[in-house]
Amino acid sequence: MVITVRIILVGYGVVGQSFTSMLLRRRHETVKDYGLNPKVVAIVDRGGAAINAKGLDLEKMLALKRQKGSVSVDNEFGFRGKPPLEVIESVEAEVLVEASSTNVKDGEPGLSHIKTAFKTGKHVVTTNKGPLALAFPTLTELAAYNKVYLRFSGTVGGGTPVLELAKKCLAGDKILAIRGILNGTTNYILTEMAEKHVTFQQALGSAQKLGYAETDPSMDIDGIDPACKVVIMANWIMNKKLTLKDVDVQGIRGVTLEALEKAAKRGNTIKLVGSIDGEARVAPTEVSKHDPLCVSGVLNAVTFVSEFAGEETIIGRGAGGPETASAILRDLLDIRHNLADKMLM
Amino acid sequence: MVITVRIILVGYGVVGQSFTSMLLRRRHETVKDYGLNPKVVAIVDRGGAAINAKGLDLEKMLALKRQKGSVSVDNEFGFRGKPPLEVIESVEAEVLVEASSTNVKDGEPGLSHIKTAFKTGKHVVTTNKGPLALAFPTLTELAAYNKVYLRFSGTVGGGTPVLELAKKCLAGDKILAIRGILNGTTNYILTEMAEKHVTFQQALGSAQKLGYAETDPSMDIDGIDPACKVVIMANWIMNKKLTLKDVDVQGIRGVTLEALEKAAKRGNTIKLVGSIDGEARVAPTEVSKHDPLCVSGVLNAVTFVSEFAGEETIIGRGAGGPETASAILRDLLDIRHNLADKMLM
Repeated sequence: MVITVRIILVGYGVVGQSFTSMLLRRRHETVKDYGLNPKVVAIVDRGGAAINAKGLDLEKMLALKRQKGSVSVDNEFGFRGKPPLEVIESVEAEVLVEASSTNVKDGEPGLSHIKTAFKTGKHVVTTNKGPLALAFPTLTELAAYNKVYLRFSGTVGGGTPVLELAKKCLAGDKILAIRGILNGTTNYILTEMAEKHVTFQQALGSAQKLGYAETDPSMDIDGIDPACKVVIMANWIMNKKLTLKDVDVQGIRGVTLEALEKAAKRGNTIKLVGSIDGEARVAPTEVSKHDPLCVSGVLNAVTFVSEFAGEETIIGRGAGGPETASAILRDLLDIRHNLADKMLM
Repeated sequence: MVITVRIILVGYGVVGQSFTSMLLRRRHETVKDYGLNPKVVAIVDRGGAAINAKGLDLEKMLALKRQKGSVSVDNEFGFRGKPPLEVIESVEAEVLVEASSTNVKDGEPGLSHIKTAFKTGKHVVTTNKGPLALAFPTLTELAAYNKVYLRFSGTVGGGTPVLELAKKCLAGDKILAIRGILNGTTNYILTEMAEKHVTFQQALGSAQKLGYAETDPSMDIDGIDPACKVVIMANWIMNKKLTLKDVDVQGIRGVTLEALEKAAKRGNTIKLVGSIDGEARVAPTEVSKHDPLCVSGVLNAVTFVSEFAGEETIIGRGAGGPETASAILRDLLDIRHNLADKMLM
């Protein structure tokens, strides 16, 4: 059974563009192998919106974005300056794909986008950690109340299916604790320091040169980004009701070369570990070099301590446009699957 | 919705006993959290069978097995010398849990157990690699023909959900290649050789002393066990139609300390890697120590190379009674889920 899912895409940066590229490239398979016919009926970026109830021409949208900076300049379907909330409210669609940028101060504008989608009966797939970190319990309640799905695979582990592994593959087992290296930038910096014996400032500089760290790197190196991921895992996997303020967070600014060398003498190294085990925290932590969690460079790794299957670790790239776009598609397939089940009921 | 699933358990060794222990311990959760009411109506071991259409007393069965060596001595429900095929044919049940021991010569007796279950309309959960390694394409066809499910999570990675990760969590992506360390015994031996600079024979001896290696260790060290797992993954995950004879297999008897030392100088080590990438093979392979696949000791690790999400590695314990029992439970939950879907149709 092929189910057509109309999509409003809000946020047309790296992730949003990767998502539409992927849809173009894989349309045939998506329909044939998965019974999902995704139809993007609106795209909203900072310049405004493009809207077509019959489905936008994604090739044209990508070209417009790249050449003119906004899809809203489209002659036929463009609406310059049209605000996202208006689009989410007024355009008929099954799913909002929320890919605007993360803001951990108040979660906006993502938080309002998601709430508005819920109120108008739309399912939400988001790659935006801010709203979840600040209001996970509220958002899941609101989704349940409005009988819609909220999915966010891309928020933890990028393309690596960390959340799905825990929810879908460890069914029947009980997850007792989680430990993870959840931020590629800080892991790159710590790996550089440990292996090349350079200072924190030097390693940060090289991360910035390579594009791994932002000009304002505070979200990463002060541990905010991994703390958001800890919140999401604690709520989704371990049924805890936490928000960002409940996480004890310490970044990597204080990690010295001396500390790394001392750890090395014990066969260990220092990693920025996010953990949920009684309490939720993010802190530089000594990890054995033999621990599967001990990955180097920009990799992410998460270990689930389960009651019966023991410790299981999943490792993969934690970020990147195509990777995160693949997570959006997985979420859409999951929603499609649930919708199909409901139709049968 | 709670669904009662009647189970015939054939094979009552470490895995079978762990499975019944787990059912005892987790009955409440299984019913409440997952809507599965598992009722073991028959257990068959080498001495015969115990059968009770109302459900066997599993505590008593465990005690009988431990104290008397067979459940068939039960006064009320025991049938000494009753052959498994007769039980599978005649006892009414939804699922056969096949946990007899692996035989890669002709797959028996597991192969006949599974085929008989199919013919009498029973779903099968198996932890037995032999039948799958020798006849995967035939068995899946036969299952489809008889409209029953065949599940085998415990055959690869023990409790680690290797197969589920690939099938359920990478939906929408395409797996292009697989590489894995699929055998804990050989990985223990190679780790010992590399780290303690002991010979193959010495490392094998210590593996046998610790109970990791059998008295006849050929299944492991000649690469047969990992080759079986390669066959299962190639068929199930990559839709190839292979059997054991299609895998190019080389074990670890020829790995020397010199070769390990040379590899170490290049920052690498030698692991027994099973891979599917065009062709299917098992061979000692140089792997970078920075590769997430490079786990030590008895751990298993599998890397999936996917088109969009990049490389993803899952690591966990590859064997053990409770771990494999947890895989059986996951398979039962999956079958329960599919049955529930069908009831709605």
